[in-house]
Amino acid sequence: MSSKNITTNEIHDDFDVRFTHRLMFDRDVLAADNPTIDAIFTDGSNDDPRPGMIVAIDDGLAAANPGIEDAIRRRFDPHHLPEIREILEIPGGEAAKNDPAVTDRMLEAIERHRIDRRSYVAVFGGGAVIDAVGFASSTAHRGVRLIRFPSTVLGQLDAAIGVKNGINRFGKKNFVGAFDVPVAVICDEGFLESLDDRRWCEGFSEAVKIACLQDAAFFDEIEEAADRIRERDPDASRPIIQRCAELHLRHIASGGDPFERREARPLDFGHWSAHRLESMSDFARSHGEAVAIGVCLDAAYSHFDERLDRGSLDRILDTTTRLGLPIFDSLLRDQGLIDGLDEFREHLGGRLTVTLLEGIGRGVDVHEMDLERLRRSIAHLESNAPA
Amino acid sequence: MSSKNITTNEIHDDFDVRFTHRLMFDRDVLAADNPTIDAIFTDGSNDDPRPGMIVAIDDGLAAANPGIEDAIRRRFDPHHLPEIREILEIPGGEAAKNDPAVTDRMLEAIERHRIDRRSYVAVFGGGAVIDAVGFASSTAHRGVRLIRFPSTVLGQLDAAIGVKNGINRFGKKNFVGAFDVPVAVICDEGFLESLDDRRWCEGFSEAVKIACLQDAAFFDEIEEAADRIRERDPDASRPIIQRCAELHLRHIASGGDPFERREARPLDFGHWSAHRLESMSDFARSHGEAVAIGVCLDAAYSHFDERLDRGSLDRILDTTTRLGLPIFDSLLRDQGLIDGLDEFREHLGGRLTVTLLEGIGRGVDVHEMDLERLRRSIAHLESNAPA
Repeated sequence: MSSKNITTNEIHDDFDVRFTHRLMFDRDVLAADNPTIDAIFTDGSNDDPRPGMIVAIDDGLAAANPGIEDAIRRRFDPHHLPEIREILEIPGGEAAKNDPAVTDRMLEAIERHRIDRRSYVAVFGGGAVIDAVGFASSTAHRGVRLIRFPSTVLGQLDAAIGVKNGINRFGKKNFVGAFDVPVAVICDEGFLESLDDRRWCEGFSEAVKIACLQDAAFFDEIEEAADRIRERDPDASRPIIQRCAELHLRHIASGGDPFERREARPLDFGHWSAHRLESMSDFARSHGEAVAIGVCLDAAYSHFDERLDRGSLDRILDTTTRLGLPIFDSLLRDQGLIDGLDEFREHLGGRLTVTLLEGIGRGVDVHEMDLERLRRSIAHLESNAPA
Repeated sequence: MSSKNITTNEIHDDFDVRFTHRLMFDRDVLAADNPTIDAIFTDGSNDDPRPGMIVAIDDGLAAANPGIEDAIRRRFDPHHLPEIREILEIPGGEAAKNDPAVTDRMLEAIERHRIDRRSYVAVFGGGAVIDAVGFASSTAHRGVRLIRFPSTVLGQLDAAIGVKNGINRFGKKNFVGAFDVPVAVICDEGFLESLDDRRWCEGFSEAVKIACLQDAAFFDEIEEAADRIRERDPDASRPIIQRCAELHLRHIASGGDPFERREARPLDFGHWSAHRLESMSDFARSHGEAVAIGVCLDAAYSHFDERLDRGSLDRILDTTTRLGLPIFDSLLRDQGLIDGLDEFREHLGGRLTVTLLEGIGRGVDVHEMDLERLRRSIAHLESNAPA
């Protein structure tokens, strides 16, 4: 064979894949006369046979809303909507993501009921259930159509808007997952009424976070509404939830790298310590509470690092507190927190990147943290935390 | 709570995700003085710590090329390239996709060696191993960087160019999978020399297929080169392999729907019967051989359906035969083949779509097949098959 002198031949090609992300806010979407669900299916080809659908419900949501399964069955009874083939209850909370059997149950149901790429999976529940069910639906046939019905504040303003699905493996959060965009995210305000106060409040920490980072006017609105939000006034909380979701969606759609192809991206503002607090507390600290503390910690550090003025720091701590959220946890004093900073540095490939604030609405990336200032920040939170 | 008269609020946003698909053809890429592998890593940030890499090798390739593991280790020795942390041998062929332990072994290795999103997985082997390893690498951390080194003709001109990764579950091919684009696909002509004649020939059926569908001039080239290809003349086969890969890449990049978001897409030309033949033969018929037969069947049907002239049909059957490929299998006479047509109709959601030819290079979608014409086509193949 005489192929010594061939030269390398390289062909390459760039291409774009278009995704449409659709978010709907409403209440009582399962009521017979509510057209929100119908709106998702109007552009389907109606002359085809009726597509099938599997429904997954967070067992916490099902327990708090007896009759929800019947309501779902009734709502999807009309023939222009997908046909429900099975309803599965999924254990709520982090358990959904820790147990590989959840993914397997979903895949088996998808196979058994011949759910294909023009059929649907609908998931009703909190962020963890949405994540685990989404991982199964985004890998079965390389992606069947997913409709998310987030049932928590955190889900409606943050988690269910993301384009990530994932489960935990080897004790690591979201070790296995896939990027995918749902057909629609339908946020029903009615579901939020069955949350206990703690789960209600915790969701708003992500609103404080995104406002601190990106939008001073939005921070003003949260500050103004904080007491009424804590009292669970829907007219005060609704615009905050919707605005937060919209900011999150715009960030995904316009941030330039929705699938994080280009680099290992640093965690969100306040999240380096939040993730650590969750695991150090064995998840006794919920994600939302941990984020509230993490945001306050990085805000305090921003102040002691001479970036954020004292008045702005005070407003952040006060607003967080009035929202019913913690700003301190004694675990912050543990050496494990500092170790977490090192682990995070390693995760990023050796160079630390953390976001701090130069003002409310103005985030800035920095590449080191001073341990003495970090300790001062922790002490400041402790002395300002409500007794 | 006074929220009766809220109106539905819908926010939606379209966004594009950009992917770069990079294909390189060369030979002896593992030689110390060959710069092809270096070229992939030139745009990396060299001041970062050295990224890690896991290597997966098809056990068939390793057996046919003793010393390949050492050659890989030597080639990646320089510090500007990723550091090899482990080399795993993976059982070749469909076994790689049938055994969930393969995905698990890959995920465990990725976790154990802290392969993150700026680290690499390199896979050397046939299409099935590339698929299975790709599924693990595309879901670990929602996607670590994958470099594919396809070692078969079929891999280099078709399978390894695709943006699909997948494994079999519930006895169904590719039931679970993910779309993902590798960092690079490096096709080393040298690997093809260790293939036996059957595996060499079978790859060219995909070239016949794409030429029949899209490119009459390319068909002329294959027809002209067929005898020399069968004799394994690299100067005759090289341009056919590269042109086929390029057509495949352009189809993905310019076809408008690389991730098949919009609809359940019909299988490729000739593939409805090819998939069936593979499973009816318990995979004794390889994918490439089954595709050759499937392409000839649909070409013959196109003729008896009065779309394709007799001269063109003769050229397709003759070229396929001269490439050392089968044009007939007695399983075509089995009722299971017709049942496969029904199953395929169901897979598409009730409406059959099959591609036929109106000429060489001119595919057309049709929505029914006449069983009598199909039988006539099968008889025609049988009587024209070499003894």
